[in-house]
Amino acid sequence: MNEGHDDHERGPNEEDDGTGDRKEFSHDPVGHVEVGSGMTVEELVAEYGHGGIGAQTLQEAVDIYAEMLGRDDVTNFFGLAGAMVPAGMRHVVADLIRDGHINALVTTGANLTHDAIEAIGGKHHHGREEVEGRALREHDETLREEGVDRIYNVYLPQEHFALFEDHLRGEVFPALEPEGTVSIRRFTAELGRANSEVNEREDVEERAGIAAAAYENDVPVYCPAVQDSVLGLQAWMYSQTTDFSLDALADMTHLNDLAFESESAGAMVVGGGVPKNYVLQTMLVAPDAYDYAVQLTMDPPQTGGLSGATLDEARSWGKLEPTARNVSVYADATITLPIVVAGVRERIDE
Amino acid sequence: MNEGHDDHERGPNEEDDGTGDRKEFSHDPVGHVEVGSGMTVEELVAEYGHGGIGAQTLQEAVDIYAEMLGRDDVTNFFGLAGAMVPAGMRHVVADLIRDGHINALVTTGANLTHDAIEAIGGKHHHGREEVEGRALREHDETLREEGVDRIYNVYLPQEHFALFEDHLRGEVFPALEPEGTVSIRRFTAELGRANSEVNEREDVEERAGIAAAAYENDVPVYCPAVQDSVLGLQAWMYSQTTDFSLDALADMTHLNDLAFESESAGAMVVGGGVPKNYVLQTMLVAPDAYDYAVQLTMDPPQTGGLSGATLDEARSWGKLEPTARNVSVYADATITLPIVVAGVRERIDE
Amino acid sequence: MNEGHDDHERGPNEEDDGTGDRKEFSHDPVGHVEVGSGMTVEELVAEYGHGGIGAQTLQEAVDIYAEMLGRDDVTNFFGLAGAMVPAGMRHVVADLIRDGHINALVTTGANLTHDAIEAIGGKHHHGREEVEGRALREHDETLREEGVDRIYNVYLPQEHFALFEDHLRGEVFPALEPEGTVSIRRFTAELGRANSEVNEREDVEERAGIAAAAYENDVPVYCPAVQDSVLGLQAWMYSQTTDFSLDALADMTHLNDLAFESESAGAMVVGGGVPKNYVLQTMLVAPDAYDYAVQLTMDPPQTGGLSGATLDEARSWGKLEPTARNVSVYADATITLPIVVAGVRERIDE
Amino acid sequence: MNEGHDDHERGPNEEDDGTGDRKEFSHDPVGHVEVGSGMTVEELVAEYGHGGIGAQTLQEAVDIYAEMLGRDDVTNFFGLAGAMVPAGMRHVVADLIRDGHINALVTTGANLTHDAIEAIGGKHHHGREEVEGRALREHDETLREEGVDRIYNVYLPQEHFALFEDHLRGEVFPALEPEGTVSIRRFTAELGRANSEVNEREDVEERAGIAAAAYENDVPVYCPAVQDSVLGLQAWMYSQTTDFSLDALADMTHLNDLAFESESAGAMVVGGGVPKNYVLQTMLVAPDAYDYAVQLTMDPPQTGGLSGATLDEARSWGKLEPTARNVSVYADATITLPIVVAGVRERIDE
Repeated sequence: MNEGHDDHERGPNEEDDGTGDRKEFSHDPVGHVEVGSGMTVEELVAEYGHGGIGAQTLQEAVDIYAEMLGRDDVTNFFGLAGAMVPAGMRHVVADLIRDGHINALVTTGANLTHDAIEAIGGKHHHGREEVEGRALREHDETLREEGVDRIYNVYLPQEHFALFEDHLRGEVFPALEPEGTVSIRRFTAELGRANSEVNEREDVEERAGIAAAAYENDVPVYCPAVQDSVLGLQAWMYSQTTDFSLDALADMTHLNDLAFESESAGAMVVGGGVPKNYVLQTMLVAPDAYDYAVQLTMDPPQTGGLSGATLDEARSWGKLEPTARNVSVYADATITLPIVVAGVRERIDE
Repeated sequence: MNEGHDDHERGPNEEDDGTGDRKEFSHDPVGHVEVGSGMTVEELVAEYGHGGIGAQTLQEAVDIYAEMLGRDDVTNFFGLAGAMVPAGMRHVVADLIRDGHINALVTTGANLTHDAIEAIGGKHHHGREEVEGRALREHDETLREEGVDRIYNVYLPQEHFALFEDHLRGEVFPALEPEGTVSIRRFTAELGRANSEVNEREDVEERAGIAAAAYENDVPVYCPAVQDSVLGLQAWMYSQTTDFSLDALADMTHLNDLAFESESAGAMVVGGGVPKNYVLQTMLVAPDAYDYAVQLTMDPPQTGGLSGATLDEARSWGKLEPTARNVSVYADATITLPIVVAGVRERIDE
Repeated sequence: MNEGHDDHERGPNEEDDGTGDRKEFSHDPVGHVEVGSGMTVEELVAEYGHGGIGAQTLQEAVDIYAEMLGRDDVTNFFGLAGAMVPAGMRHVVADLIRDGHINALVTTGANLTHDAIEAIGGKHHHGREEVEGRALREHDETLREEGVDRIYNVYLPQEHFALFEDHLRGEVFPALEPEGTVSIRRFTAELGRANSEVNEREDVEERAGIAAAAYENDVPVYCPAVQDSVLGLQAWMYSQTTDFSLDALADMTHLNDLAFESESAGAMVVGGGVPKNYVLQTMLVAPDAYDYAVQLTMDPPQTGGLSGATLDEARSWGKLEPTARNVSVYADATITLPIVVAGVRERIDE
Repeated sequence: MNEGHDDHERGPNEEDDGTGDRKEFSHDPVGHVEVGSGMTVEELVAEYGHGGIGAQTLQEAVDIYAEMLGRDDVTNFFGLAGAMVPAGMRHVVADLIRDGHINALVTTGANLTHDAIEAIGGKHHHGREEVEGRALREHDETLREEGVDRIYNVYLPQEHFALFEDHLRGEVFPALEPEGTVSIRRFTAELGRANSEVNEREDVEERAGIAAAAYENDVPVYCPAVQDSVLGLQAWMYSQTTDFSLDALADMTHLNDLAFESESAGAMVVGGGVPKNYVLQTMLVAPDAYDYAVQLTMDPPQTGGLSGATLDEARSWGKLEPTARNVSVYADATITLPIVVAGVRERIDE
């Protein structure tokens, strides 16, 4: 074969693993992944680090995120897009807030809507695919007739939206009305307070969730596209008959001050969309940029969209420091987020 | 082989194509795609219709979109996400507006930012990958030092953002300031007016673009997450020293009235994100739902995210009529959008 | 904002588009895509070239493939994976062979199976999704009961496999049996001859297809994983009772000689898998490597798999010349292949 | 809002979770995922099962695979495609073989090549991205000059291929030569024997790997497209000067007998391509079909290719029993395979 002819004379023992004084290549062997019964998630993550492709990026994500959370001088920004609450990631995020690991949360109106529905006692459901041995596929027309909304393989009865409306009109909007036009952060904080109180008062089975945890811990929840959700539709309907309204720009001062005052800054970005960009863009008006960044996404970079773009691309914009540690894990975030959080928790000995 | 043993006795001439009275299967043969020199895009699309997989979905997209645009009683909503202006799709969209084919546009602050940069004479550039025979890969650090922002394979010199700031502060904000808090649609309309005027006054090579076309044709441009963009950052900075601000909810009445008053409604959704959902969710508060929907996306449905979700899923939510014609084309929208538009224009004989 | 402060003093007219003597950046503006009624595919492709992201890569694919086909001294290797025959791409490929544009074809047993089924009068069918206004989803169990195989949205009645078996046992194997163990290329050539003869004799509506075109034009058809298909299962069943067998290695001499003797070499790779790698790996034992390479794929590179790997990666292996022109188009190949072929045909004035 | 108006009168306590006697919907609430320090992989998997989207499919994969491995009467077929050995998954697979959990392995020549390179003492390496604080991107031209092959983010010095050639010519081919034409399975078994012996004799740091484990445990290794790999190129070169050759069809009897004699059958498919299809298609000539099937893939179904196709599609072909338990996990297999194996090992108490 055309490569390696010169090496034919060398025996296996003379093999030098190709290090030399090469620019691109240096000796760092892949040590194969080993798995066994009873291993912890952190042990699994350490094994990933021996491997390549996605496994290695996931170990690197844990490593970087552990460094972000382990250092006292890092302000942690967290972007949460995608159907992460319907997918069951609500407590994972809420507990990070409770443990002081999130200093600012950027998320979608949809995640806040679904978070509140659970806080007041509503449930999402696993979409059944088999009934009495007979396979059923997702019949969206039938679901419509049955009053059930589908989010991939998760079902949500539409009646929960009516209860959510009651919650907003009973517990959230009245408290805000006297203030007239408020910031979105003010709105999400009030939602968090109400979720927290109703959850406790009604003794709801599920814990109060993300917005409640943020409220209880004074963590700001930014939701730039709040009007693009059922939460936003409700806010609009309420604004029709009252003085209530939302200021689209007011939060940027607050978020940018946070970035400005950070000694060091880290970004954990789950999914793409507005939360990802909003977390990153704040550095365009700050003197420095992110020192750490991790993204967990399944959007491919080759579409040219922001959601799948590498974090290196963000470096060209000055959103990351030139020397920032960063990694992108291209795999289902409903799988990778719990691994990263469990791995980091074990690493920082919680 | 275990299938077809019963058929062994039949000769080729008795072959009946397997129709019978089957429920799932009916005779509709794939006729193979033929391509030749000089064929028009519409002829190509007709050939796609003979094929299967993605080709067939693209033909169906043309068919549905032609029906949407060909009927006088259909109100056309258009969602535009992704880096479509940097990717060169600016005139495709602007010309649809000019020709009366878009009644409401929902897009991102990023697309409006890049649209305005071109309107005032700025240019995006093809990222060079080879210089004097020597291959270069994207060095984002180097780009940062050179003051160039990268969007996948498109480069944008950062100095254009300063000129964009001048444009906003010189031509756009002063006109709005007396009004105090305005709707986002009011802001994008004023941006369109300013783009249009500067473009003409300065005799800029490129046409005035999307926002200008919308302004000139009284087409509303909704931008729910405007703060998530350089356009939004500029609006925020201006709001710091003036009475200018943006109302996050005000546009929803306008958009929902449009949906409410539509005899029939069609949605063309390019990319996912906020524009896709905002176009679709307006039907949650309207008496009816979309009669037509086409989406061009490269996000896969299996992440569970809204961006890649099928339009059938939207049917379970009541965003599409049970009988709505709809199709999702899973392929790069920078490739499929021009085909769909060229094909439809030929079909409706423009 | 933190970028561009130095530029604030400059007016629009002093704007220099950021060229200077930069390494990464040079002036090559994105000129926006324009589409209109009646434009030809080649005109559309020229417009793609003005844009970015995927559109630009597709224009580059046409440009490179036109150069490959336009030069007399280039030997053209073609890899065809994926369900391209069921998707209707059979004539596109067969016509390239007939016009002398393919010198060696590497494909899958599945494509040859489906090609032969059409050659003897069988049909693939568009999977119906609506019957009498009632939406049906793909019920694979029901299809099984009905004797219909599904390939995404294409259906194939299983009885065609029985007719295919008759074809092989009546027309193909008897001619090969006296030769005992034959190369796979010999087998596919005999299949092509039989397809050609039966197609003509029986006056089948569809043209004789890929294998027939290859046979008629002395183009070798390599099928390394032939046993991984219904064609291979049939070959195995026949080998059980006769001396017929297939030599797994025999074709490599033939293919490698072709590579060795090529003055210049070009690779067009549609889909990934074995056809892609087999086309590329032949250069590992040739003195030179590919001068041109184009791939049309929807597999993402970030899985680390060969199917989605960039062609740059192949350069590290020595499968491409360091200076080879190459491009990867990440979009549905059932959409991009017809565009590339129509565009190239118009470009080389056929 | 247009849904749920009738429900306005109901308070939260009357909420019935929407069960009723619905066809599609039945009460099965999503219970949110909880993660903590020190949790085991199996505990993590149990948490995934509470969630939705990909997390839930991964839990289901563990559940099905545990049932496959826990039942004595199930014959386990394993398909291994993709760059899984370079990615570090070599011991995960080899240990499954050693523990009796794989009865037949179908893989690629590439995986066997990389497995043998490690068995004789070669190493893959993590591709460095940073050297002395200066970021480097993958420069494939430079790598070529340095004699290093790249597989995404894994590097392999080309000199290992020369040592692999020595291994084959010294230890493998001489033992086979007297037999003339052999089956591919015979070839892979001999490779396994040689790997095992050299590994032990030379006291290589890494364990002997997949082919060795299979040899030591009499597990057949099928490699239908063996010629599509460096292993195949070497076999071909050797066949040029000797009587050695490989029979492409011989193994099918062996594999099909295995399927025929299975009381029950299960398929674990990692990645797509030839290994996936070859595992599945064997049921086309068996009286029954798979009772269990799990696939771990990152290829999307919407390309229409076999690699990403759902296992339901395989049911239409009769490759799966109508009642077969099956699940597809769409996420990076280098991440999911270790989880599935660790989870199953804990579940079956190993």
